[in-house]
Amino acid sequence: MSKLFFRYSSMSAGKSLALLSVAHNYEERGHEVVCYTAQIADRDGVGVIATRAGLKRPAHVFGPATEFDTELIGKPACVLIDEGQFLSPHQVRQLHRYAHEHRVPVLVYGLRTDFRGELFPGAAMLLGLADVLDELRTICACGRKATMNARVGADGRRVTDGPQVEIGGNARYRAVCARCFYSGDAT
Amino acid sequence: MSKLFFRYSSMSAGKSLALLSVAHNYEERGHEVVCYTAQIADRDGVGVIATRAGLKRPAHVFGPATEFDTELIGKPACVLIDEGQFLSPHQVRQLHRYAHEHRVPVLVYGLRTDFRGELFPGAAMLLGLADVLDELRTICACGRKATMNARVGADGRRVTDGPQVEIGGNARYRAVCARCFYSGDAT
Amino acid sequence: MSKLFFRYSSMSAGKSLALLSVAHNYEERGHEVVCYTAQIADRDGVGVIATRAGLKRPAHVFGPATEFDTELIGKPACVLIDEGQFLSPHQVRQLHRYAHEHRVPVLVYGLRTDFRGELFPGAAMLLGLADVLDELRTICACGRKATMNARVGADGRRVTDGPQVEIGGNARYRAVCARCFYSGDAT
Amino acid sequence: MSKLFFRYSSMSAGKSLALLSVAHNYEERGHEVVCYTAQIADRDGVGVIATRAGLKRPAHVFGPATEFDTELIGKPACVLIDEGQFLSPHQVRQLHRYAHEHRVPVLVYGLRTDFRGELFPGAAMLLGLADVLDELRTICACGRKATMNARVGADGRRVTDGPQVEIGGNARYRAVCARCFYSGDAT
Repeated sequence: MSKLFFRYSSMSAGKSLALLSVAHNYEERGHEVVCYTAQIADRDGVGVIATRAGLKRPAHVFGPATEFDTELIGKPACVLIDEGQFLSPHQVRQLHRYAHEHRVPVLVYGLRTDFRGELFPGAAMLLGLADVLDELRTICACGRKATMNARVGADGRRVTDGPQVEIGGNARYRAVCARCFYSGDAT
Repeated sequence: MSKLFFRYSSMSAGKSLALLSVAHNYEERGHEVVCYTAQIADRDGVGVIATRAGLKRPAHVFGPATEFDTELIGKPACVLIDEGQFLSPHQVRQLHRYAHEHRVPVLVYGLRTDFRGELFPGAAMLLGLADVLDELRTICACGRKATMNARVGADGRRVTDGPQVEIGGNARYRAVCARCFYSGDAT
Repeated sequence: MSKLFFRYSSMSAGKSLALLSVAHNYEERGHEVVCYTAQIADRDGVGVIATRAGLKRPAHVFGPATEFDTELIGKPACVLIDEGQFLSPHQVRQLHRYAHEHRVPVLVYGLRTDFRGELFPGAAMLLGLADVLDELRTICACGRKATMNARVGADGRRVTDGPQVEIGGNARYRAVCARCFYSGDAT
Repeated sequence: MSKLFFRYSSMSAGKSLALLSVAHNYEERGHEVVCYTAQIADRDGVGVIATRAGLKRPAHVFGPATEFDTELIGKPACVLIDEGQFLSPHQVRQLHRYAHEHRVPVLVYGLRTDFRGELFPGAAMLLGLADVLDELRTICACGRKATMNARVGADGRRVTDGPQVEIGGNARYRAVCARCFYSGDAT
């Protein structure tokens, strides 16, 4: 298990809940875990991993300047990272080395692509280096498996252009299947 | 997604939490789900799916006499079944047909083998028929992936014989890797 | 990698070819592999693993009386077993222990269910104990993923009853999806 | 099955053999498949998919200028692409749309990262968009699962710098695990 895992999904598939479940399982057995989330993901406050179902826990935060090489000291049973799409490729490489050189499992949860279907740079590196890729499945409104993310504007209409990261609510995003993504049936 | 999924794991891997997460995702999108748990799994009360992390919801119960052919009417967005190892092979076949003939996803969560390393009959049929097999990973105390379940007695010592199902607490079970299962390092 | 792998599929998915590919990869690196096939699977001669694409190699054979505990001596880089559905549950348990106690990867290729949708006993145990379950996907004539096997008689009509194992040709079997399996559209 | 599949692995895992096996399975059932390989991958001649085990077949070639939007006409049962790491991100997006709009399965086989541990741009897009990610496992000389690729020079020593693509033999590459990749034990 001392590997880099990337557990990817579309929006709202239950990534944070899955992460908290793993943390709980380790701690219940008396093992120490280290949790991180992205500084930019501050919907429920900076340094909080929260689920829509109501569970939450505090977490370390990472930002563009975080150096995991110096941050990760000691040997926890597991490192858990939420919002992994906001990692930089450099940080992903640090985590990959760390997992293998220190023999600590590193589990990263995150998105693959943004609302334009473009890769998050950190997600690309996670997909390229992770020893294990696991998909957390969720559904499109049409019933098919969702693999993409669509953004809707304040008027409820699909938005297909703009910056990759927008501060603000998840209410603006929909997990959609590729067929709806391309056909525009994604609102 | 209109298939039979079997999401299997060892004890205490977060199966119920994963199930509740899926139910929540469907309902948040306005879809109806039908949840079941085993009548025999009454640790938190009959007809309750509860997680160690504190989430819970009421659920229908199934017992040896349940006929899903007559129980499942209408067309929910999804059928979710916890403690699926207690299904009978006959019930698994009904669920498999139901998923394909009514085009409803059926997601079953459960164990594969008991504390002796013997298959639960319903789990065997689920493993044989499910369109998608997903593992929910958890760890052994030694750090390797747990794939087996060990039982410990009231004195804390490993028990390797006895009936498959014992009423009573999860505290008696440990998720262990195969190496610890066979070596006896599973207490 | 020192685990028990079960790579399952429906008929004619390329299991033997996948096995020969793995054997070739090990041997190309100078590692010794041990290959087995079922004595009963004698279409291309007893003790031969052959692919429809034309590759073949000799292999040890296992039958109901084979004791892997005494057969597997030394420490090969890998044990590869074709037609694994014909293993007995007892043999599967031996192979599982062997993989973990001797730290040798054991890769078993085989079917899950027969033409009636009933589990092969050895396949059930493989599905229950394997550390890693991998599906080799193949397609139904309708285009969906095939997960079941149908048998057709000499007259080309679907057969749904009879003994689990019938000596004779693969021409009698079709890989089908569950929808076609249940609807009878499987000829 | 009408999706984009990316079946990734390290060097020499049997990707071409797996592709030929799928092609054979379709054709054996009377379905038409369309096969492509990269123009640049000319070890066995331009427009040939060949396996180290001796199987081969002719294939269309793609280069940087190939527009799949205009190349893929009609509706084959399946599109199979070898050496997919040489696709451009633009081509991957065309194939993704094609799979979903024309409901044709597109199966792409390829590497994730180069000998420096850097992503191939086409592989990144495949990892980001594919509906299903499947790993073809192979082993490192140390026995662990190989996830990376190392290059050795004419003198047999590890090379860690240079252009991503080098014309010439596979003999220069080794599939290695991450631990050996980082420790330098990869020759």
